[in-house]
Amino acid sequence: MLESGARLPHVEVAYETYGTLNADRTNAVYICHALTGDAHCAGHHGDPARPGWWDNIIGPGRPVDTDRWFVVCSNLLGGCQGTTGPSSVDPATGRPYGLRFPLFTVRDLVSVHRALLRHLGVERLAVAMGGSLGGMQVLQWAIDHPDDLHAAAVVCASGRLSPQNIAFSAVAREAIMRDPNFQGGDYYDTGRRPDAGLSLARMMAHITYLSEQSMREKFGRRLQGSDTPRFGFDVDFQVESYLHHQGESFLKRFDANTYLYMTRVMDYFDPFADPLVVVPKLEAVKTRFLVLSFDSDWRFDTSHSREIVRNLSASRIPVTFREIASPFGHDSFLLPVPEYHRTVRAFFARAEAEAVHGAPAARAPGE
Amino acid sequence: MLESGARLPHVEVAYETYGTLNADRTNAVYICHALTGDAHCAGHHGDPARPGWWDNIIGPGRPVDTDRWFVVCSNLLGGCQGTTGPSSVDPATGRPYGLRFPLFTVRDLVSVHRALLRHLGVERLAVAMGGSLGGMQVLQWAIDHPDDLHAAAVVCASGRLSPQNIAFSAVAREAIMRDPNFQGGDYYDTGRRPDAGLSLARMMAHITYLSEQSMREKFGRRLQGSDTPRFGFDVDFQVESYLHHQGESFLKRFDANTYLYMTRVMDYFDPFADPLVVVPKLEAVKTRFLVLSFDSDWRFDTSHSREIVRNLSASRIPVTFREIASPFGHDSFLLPVPEYHRTVRAFFARAEAEAVHGAPAARAPGE
Repeated sequence: MLESGARLPHVEVAYETYGTLNADRTNAVYICHALTGDAHCAGHHGDPARPGWWDNIIGPGRPVDTDRWFVVCSNLLGGCQGTTGPSSVDPATGRPYGLRFPLFTVRDLVSVHRALLRHLGVERLAVAMGGSLGGMQVLQWAIDHPDDLHAAAVVCASGRLSPQNIAFSAVAREAIMRDPNFQGGDYYDTGRRPDAGLSLARMMAHITYLSEQSMREKFGRRLQGSDTPRFGFDVDFQVESYLHHQGESFLKRFDANTYLYMTRVMDYFDPFADPLVVVPKLEAVKTRFLVLSFDSDWRFDTSHSREIVRNLSASRIPVTFREIASPFGHDSFLLPVPEYHRTVRAFFARAEAEAVHGAPAARAPGE
Repeated sequence: MLESGARLPHVEVAYETYGTLNADRTNAVYICHALTGDAHCAGHHGDPARPGWWDNIIGPGRPVDTDRWFVVCSNLLGGCQGTTGPSSVDPATGRPYGLRFPLFTVRDLVSVHRALLRHLGVERLAVAMGGSLGGMQVLQWAIDHPDDLHAAAVVCASGRLSPQNIAFSAVAREAIMRDPNFQGGDYYDTGRRPDAGLSLARMMAHITYLSEQSMREKFGRRLQGSDTPRFGFDVDFQVESYLHHQGESFLKRFDANTYLYMTRVMDYFDPFADPLVVVPKLEAVKTRFLVLSFDSDWRFDTSHSREIVRNLSASRIPVTFREIASPFGHDSFLLPVPEYHRTVRAFFARAEAEAVHGAPAARAPGE
């Protein structure tokens, strides 16, 4: 049953694991993916040119070292990469759910993660980690189930979207829903998909994932395949070509309805909204937090992370907060930024000492 | 003839004037409008609830005092509010131009302004002023025709769009051109217009006109007409409702093809690109400049204005530069921000003393 009261008769979950669960079952790590991610976060399936989306941080010898950790990553509820979502067939009707799929919450995403862990025989996680929407799941998880997580790494996430964040997502959804091929969400069996709208949504979102500086360095005002401007409405600047490519390639791997649901889940996420509800829960949280932001991220800028830290610290939850210098905007969380990776590596080393090897989890001075 | 070499057989210009040209013809002011403006910048046509778009700064007793100045404002070439543009009938075919309208440049916009001034018997302007694309016209005008302008006020403009600026405009144009009702730009006689795409473009652009802070103050996360979330894909947050309204009301007054042309003109604008061409021209410029930016403007942030100032100052052109504190983002230039209006008032007072009353135009110390 979902938080809304709606029921899904059947949920399949696509997941991957890396590394080996130790005999004490103390070395499990959960990776929560972001808006458009999937279960394939590390390694590759035969093609080294197509590594997992977080392969630079997860793997043998990496900051999340799969020689030490048992890492689990699943496609989110509502997703389109193997887990039940709007493109799945509703057993009651024999047709894809479309917009009849119930609206879910970040709490529901976490419920499915927990069910998967029970299935895998894992009772407690050493660390849950995620970036952006992934970090929002980690935050909700720690609040609702304080005994589940020894440590939590929340990277460039938000505890509450700003109106500007909501505005961008609203326009992205409009682009999808106004596409005549959207057909009210029932496009699956028609041979027509809202590709124009979905790629537009992706193009616009992509602008918010890059920083102004990284766009200047990556593209500047350079032209695509020419030294002189063509003076027309076709692609002429490199940045236009890049956005087109991002929009087009997204269509191969993503479903428009899932895009609607995932963005809306983020809009409504507001775990600290009611202090009367959340503060008593926070008093029970013993999870150690790492909260990271990137100084050039304007999608969820550092103020979002600071607000999370403020809310956690007010209940004396141990939080290490870092704003990492990185020119790559929101996308930094997917990139091998050295200070970022060093910080994650140190956090996991400490989690290993405490959760796996039983070192005392004393709070460091100044925390 | 346009800069591209294309010819328009016939150009009509819609314009308004305010105040009275003095006997010496020394008190003329030209107002250049921005992306979606029109000739109606001040006063009202019988309905006080529908004032001109810059009525708070232009009028009797206002910073641009129509009791002292003869103010001219025209709809831009390529526009859709009375001046010849893509929605006008091509005399060669008897049908609207659509995308057969030639692509024009900021220089072409200025050429039409100058032709209008000749028609009005004005040889020289005391001041040309504009915000955003309006400021870009003023800048080009001063560079190309240094004897035309005694003074130039360039407000929150850019001398060169950044890749992020271009990216936003590129996605806006895609939204229009992918609308099936766009029909390659030939929608005028079909009874179908690319309203969905044009309003999407406007919604997205509007996000970039407001600051994060002004959105927080104006909307926060408040819901529209309800205390509890409806948890669905319809409009729920106030910011969504606002954007919808902006998108819809825009359709009543704007043409999609004009939107394409005006944004593309801005993409290609780059007057300082070639120092070998522009520096000798700048050496001849005696126009006194006021360059203003707003600290919360992220559409054309202060670095854009600083780059203009750098380029002008390098040729010892007198420039007064101010970054005005204002929470309203790019939209600030349309709003009665006190320090902004005081600065414009003082600039016009000095221009009056020099250009109308013949005071010596000595450079102030430190300029």
